[in-house]
Amino acid sequence: MDIKHTLGKRIREQRVALGISQEYLAHFSGLHRTYIGSVERGERNVSLVNIVLIARALSMTPSELLEGIK
Amino acid sequence: MDIKHTLGKRIREQRVALGISQEYLAHFSGLHRTYIGSVERGERNVSLVNIVLIARALSMTPSELLEGIK
Repeated sequence: MDIKHTLGKRIREQRVALGISQEYLAHFSGLHRTYIGSVERGERNVSLVNIVLIARALSMTPSELLEGIK
Repeated sequence: MDIKHTLGKRIREQRVALGISQEYLAHFSGLHRTYIGSVERGERNVSLVNIVLIARALSMTPSELLEGIK
């Protein structure tokens, strides 16, 4: 699995574990719902700033969010 | 310190600890030397793929590279 897909899977798993929708994650992170969807599908080369915004909205540190990516 | 500057500082510290130049880091990561310089100065919103390339060249995981960023 490539880097972008691995991050997308991590985000989706954590979002589902928290029981929140893509809409909620979008709202909490300040990003757009369609963007969150494309990130989860591994279609986006997410920037550092957006990694931090998504991690905060998922109650993780950016370091925790990137665990398992090599 | 903002997110981009914190990452730049992390990268510079690890590069110096390894005793390698920006030129070497650029070579090992496949990125351009001037780009590495601007990343270390906190001027770039580095993408996931480039975070991974830089981390690999620094013998760290991306998760380790982002430690301390909140």
